[in-house]
Amino acid sequence: MSLPQLDFWFDFGSTYSYPASQRIQALAAEQHVYVRFRPFMLGAIFKAQGWNTSPFNLYPAKGAYMWRDLQRVCDELGLALVRPDPFPQNSLIAARVAVAVSEESWAGDYCAQVFREEFAHGRQIADPAVIRSVLDHFSSDADGILERAQSPEIKEQLRSETEMAAKLGLFGAPSFVTEDFEVFWGNDRLESALAWTHRAEKIRTR
Amino acid sequence: MSLPQLDFWFDFGSTYSYPASQRIQALAAEQHVYVRFRPFMLGAIFKAQGWNTSPFNLYPAKGAYMWRDLQRVCDELGLALVRPDPFPQNSLIAARVAVAVSEESWAGDYCAQVFREEFAHGRQIADPAVIRSVLDHFSSDADGILERAQSPEIKEQLRSETEMAAKLGLFGAPSFVTEDFEVFWGNDRLESALAWTHRAEKIRTR
Repeated sequence: MSLPQLDFWFDFGSTYSYPASQRIQALAAEQHVYVRFRPFMLGAIFKAQGWNTSPFNLYPAKGAYMWRDLQRVCDELGLALVRPDPFPQNSLIAARVAVAVSEESWAGDYCAQVFREEFAHGRQIADPAVIRSVLDHFSSDADGILERAQSPEIKEQLRSETEMAAKLGLFGAPSFVTEDFEVFWGNDRLESALAWTHRAEKIRTR
Repeated sequence: MSLPQLDFWFDFGSTYSYPASQRIQALAAEQHVYVRFRPFMLGAIFKAQGWNTSPFNLYPAKGAYMWRDLQRVCDELGLALVRPDPFPQNSLIAARVAVAVSEESWAGDYCAQVFREEFAHGRQIADPAVIRSVLDHFSSDADGILERAQSPEIKEQLRSETEMAAKLGLFGAPSFVTEDFEVFWGNDRLESALAWTHRAEKIRTR
């Protein structure tokens, strides 16, 4: 019997996607849930709402709260936190690479490591050299992967993932989507989403 | 020694303030925390951001998610949920009355009951008759309270609470604020806020 599945939709520039990315693999393994890392371009969805940057930049009170809250969340998890500059980072290359390696066993580890480079070490994830250094941990062909990530096929695949995110009604990240299309938004709803996968599983195998 | 205190900032029209209002008194009592119910006019804060209604109305994807998520949250707590119509309800009279009775021992119970009238029974909380019927549970002078709630002093007090909310950086409801001014936003952060009050207490009494 196959494991229940949870889709983890995120943007590499998204702040609360950082703690989610560091928690999800261990939690899902404990609960026998299979996680798919599905990057999308949240900026495209924001743009469709008339926003040209993160709402955390557009609404200063909300932004100030988010940075303080994120610090508390990271403190509690023992995660380092550096505020990316500029914020948000351009996540396009990181996301295309994630799409290009999505069939690899280490796809989730790659994503988690990119988040750490950005939010724990303050590195520029828009810089291909930073992405290459992450890929070097997992593959002997980082340059080949980076090249493939810029191919028309991968570009189109990421666009299509972003359209799918919009169709699912996603408006922020992280969002967790179960096999029966229940959506849970926010790092603090990860546990609820994982619990729901087992409920979905029960219904499916009835 | 006095109990640590947590301020529960809410708007009677706010959806996630409903489950928070039903949970907070029992949770706080368990944890020996004193809760102050502090209604404010969230609409005034939205207006300052350029919004003329709830963001859940302005951003349909976010609104659709919220109603679904609120249903899940209420189901888990065993709370009935009816979608108020119109949404959001005009919360001005309910809030003025809450300010007028804020020194009463039953102030929190009044607020919790108003939320149930609105979100469990679908009643119009902008209707003074609905508020009067709630007051009747707690006082033999409902009419006198309603009259006092419309006095210049109470109107000014509610305006001043709303200004205080803005100064605290509040941008949504429910928000929980500890004595050392830590802000926690959202029903799902109530537990974190309560835990923080004890941390604040330790620091204060060191």
